[in-house]
Amino acid sequence: MAVGKGTFPALPAIEGVRLGTAMAGIKKPDRRDLVVIEIAPGATVAGTFTRNAFCAAPVHVAKRHLASETPRYLLINTGNANAGTGELGMRDAEASCAELGRLAEVAGTAVLPFSTGVIGEPLPMQRLLAGLPAALDSLAAGGWAAAAEGILTTDTRPKGATASVEIGGQTVTISGISKGSGMIQPNMATMLAFVATDASIAQADLEQWLREGVARSFNCITVDSDTSTNDACMLIATGQGPAVSAEDDVARFRAALDGVLVELAQAIIRDGEGATKFVTLDVSQARSRQEALDVAFTVAHSPLVKTALYASDANWGRILAAVGRAPVADFDVDRVVIDLGDVRLVEHGGRAASYTEEAGSAVMAGEEIAIRIRLGRGEADATVWTSDLSHEYVSINADYRS
Amino acid sequence: MAVGKGTFPALPAIEGVRLGTAMAGIKKPDRRDLVVIEIAPGATVAGTFTRNAFCAAPVHVAKRHLASETPRYLLINTGNANAGTGELGMRDAEASCAELGRLAEVAGTAVLPFSTGVIGEPLPMQRLLAGLPAALDSLAAGGWAAAAEGILTTDTRPKGATASVEIGGQTVTISGISKGSGMIQPNMATMLAFVATDASIAQADLEQWLREGVARSFNCITVDSDTSTNDACMLIATGQGPAVSAEDDVARFRAALDGVLVELAQAIIRDGEGATKFVTLDVSQARSRQEALDVAFTVAHSPLVKTALYASDANWGRILAAVGRAPVADFDVDRVVIDLGDVRLVEHGGRAASYTEEAGSAVMAGEEIAIRIRLGRGEADATVWTSDLSHEYVSINADYRS
Repeated sequence: MAVGKGTFPALPAIEGVRLGTAMAGIKKPDRRDLVVIEIAPGATVAGTFTRNAFCAAPVHVAKRHLASETPRYLLINTGNANAGTGELGMRDAEASCAELGRLAEVAGTAVLPFSTGVIGEPLPMQRLLAGLPAALDSLAAGGWAAAAEGILTTDTRPKGATASVEIGGQTVTISGISKGSGMIQPNMATMLAFVATDASIAQADLEQWLREGVARSFNCITVDSDTSTNDACMLIATGQGPAVSAEDDVARFRAALDGVLVELAQAIIRDGEGATKFVTLDVSQARSRQEALDVAFTVAHSPLVKTALYASDANWGRILAAVGRAPVADFDVDRVVIDLGDVRLVEHGGRAASYTEEAGSAVMAGEEIAIRIRLGRGEADATVWTSDLSHEYVSINADYRS
Repeated sequence: MAVGKGTFPALPAIEGVRLGTAMAGIKKPDRRDLVVIEIAPGATVAGTFTRNAFCAAPVHVAKRHLASETPRYLLINTGNANAGTGELGMRDAEASCAELGRLAEVAGTAVLPFSTGVIGEPLPMQRLLAGLPAALDSLAAGGWAAAAEGILTTDTRPKGATASVEIGGQTVTISGISKGSGMIQPNMATMLAFVATDASIAQADLEQWLREGVARSFNCITVDSDTSTNDACMLIATGQGPAVSAEDDVARFRAALDGVLVELAQAIIRDGEGATKFVTLDVSQARSRQEALDVAFTVAHSPLVKTALYASDANWGRILAAVGRAPVADFDVDRVVIDLGDVRLVEHGGRAASYTEEAGSAVMAGEEIAIRIRLGRGEADATVWTSDLSHEYVSINADYRS
């Protein structure tokens, strides 16, 4: 199941980036499961990674390699997360990088590894390494769609987003792909995202813009509150286009970049495991952004709210109860106002006088639902996106050994 | 669905307490939905209540009445929570107490109201008030089983526990009932519990023993992480039996009381909405009890862990990932040891070398599963009880307007 059509957009090539794929049979035969992204020299690259203490071997290795030099290749496999694999997993991740480096004539430390899929089984190294030449042979600037397919796990469809912006009379393009549909929560989800632009961006700027962009996109989505051991979001600036440094250019570029990150993050929720609804939670008038996020995530994680959404039931009592148990000090519930779409649901600590079941049901019948919660305590806000909790979610996760 | 047989025990009468019930047709006809508990003069009474900021009208009224005098009657209705009902709800709760007080010839403030059921609909006052005489007429010392039925909502069976202890050559008895199966989480669940003893206990002691007992029983269970707006646990000491004040007596009495509270709390989990597994999470070697609770609840709330439990899948990767994302500072995952029953699952940051799928599956096949997590950081521990996440949970909560 998935919300909306989710058509994969035409992703323009990014000068300085080529993508190749192979069918290596890592978990299943006859599917793209190995992706190589080649980055031309002269680029800057930034990354954000899972904060799960049990992070996977490739995360350790990717962070170390990224700190040591600017990467020339990203190597991604699906079908196996190489997580919970101890010392063997570290050696396998290093060996994958070393072999790709040997074939491509760069140092192994210029390769970053990414893995997604089943936890706790050793990487099938023989099949993975055997697939590398084919992936390299297929490198092409137009390889985005194939790469978007090659990184999927339980996703039902590939995810991409693009934007362009004029900088100094030249067009700068941003293209990105993402994957993930389960184990999705703040602080990076079971998700991978690879975004590239042909702009020229200083390393420190790139890192800051990615960090702040991720905080308002991938770190604001939740399917099921679980954080994966393997999450990563990479941002590549190939430097083949104009520099983004003038204040006005930075603002426009960052707006476009944030738009791509939010679109890629939302695509993960729309394709959330068993999702039948796409839900936007807007919390405003909080004392701090953290407080707004706490309220939004408490509602977004509530199984009772999520099953009511699945049932298209405007069960405002469950939303109200979830808001009421959020970790907020000195909470004056009489000031809380909750709207469901354009319908006033809650005010003065109870159901709004103007509320009717018919009006609530009309909003809930849609696939895309907005819940707006005003706390009446301050001026901070946060937006979080989530999905509902369906029978199919249980089926997927009770049957699939992820 | 429910775990185990859950036979309702024979609950001994408590001198000084009588219980009556009626079928008032509050939500449905022909079911016990009104319960009155009469407390003879001379008792001490303590209560703990939900911490949900949106707490229901009867919670506000019960707390106020309890602070003003020792209650003579508890009035409980199921079928309607009188929550999210604003000023009307407060007036209805007060009026219920006043009418019971009038009939029983006590002050309205000597009555504590409790409501459970659907949120956001006004109490059907006419039917409720009309049921009071029948409930009073049926007051009997042996009314525990009928009362246990009369407080249920989505529960599939009544819940009771009893214990006795010798104090100064006399037998002191503790009897209690509880209800709740959804919206169950720490800081009181959608649960009501009423426990009485014939012992004589000073008010300050009673309050402390209840507070500390609830912290290790009802506040350590979670079905779905949602806190109800109506939770309450009441402890009555009728004072008809011997005083519990000598140090040794206190220790034995409190052990018996804690046993009753834990049994009533566990009964709620065994009857958790859609529950097919009863899961004990023991976290030890934490730096503080809060840290141990944080880890235990992170695992207990993980939908991925809960669906794996439902599938009887020893998916240690999901447990490990949940432990890894718990809010613990400077987490050295190499020191974490996880056992599933008697089977070593995780050590040194990955799957235990001795682990086999066969051994894990054998443990997961049972209805009662123990997961022990040693953090290797300190000496504090915590035990939390939870259930799995099944298709029936989704069905119950997508269909039932609670």
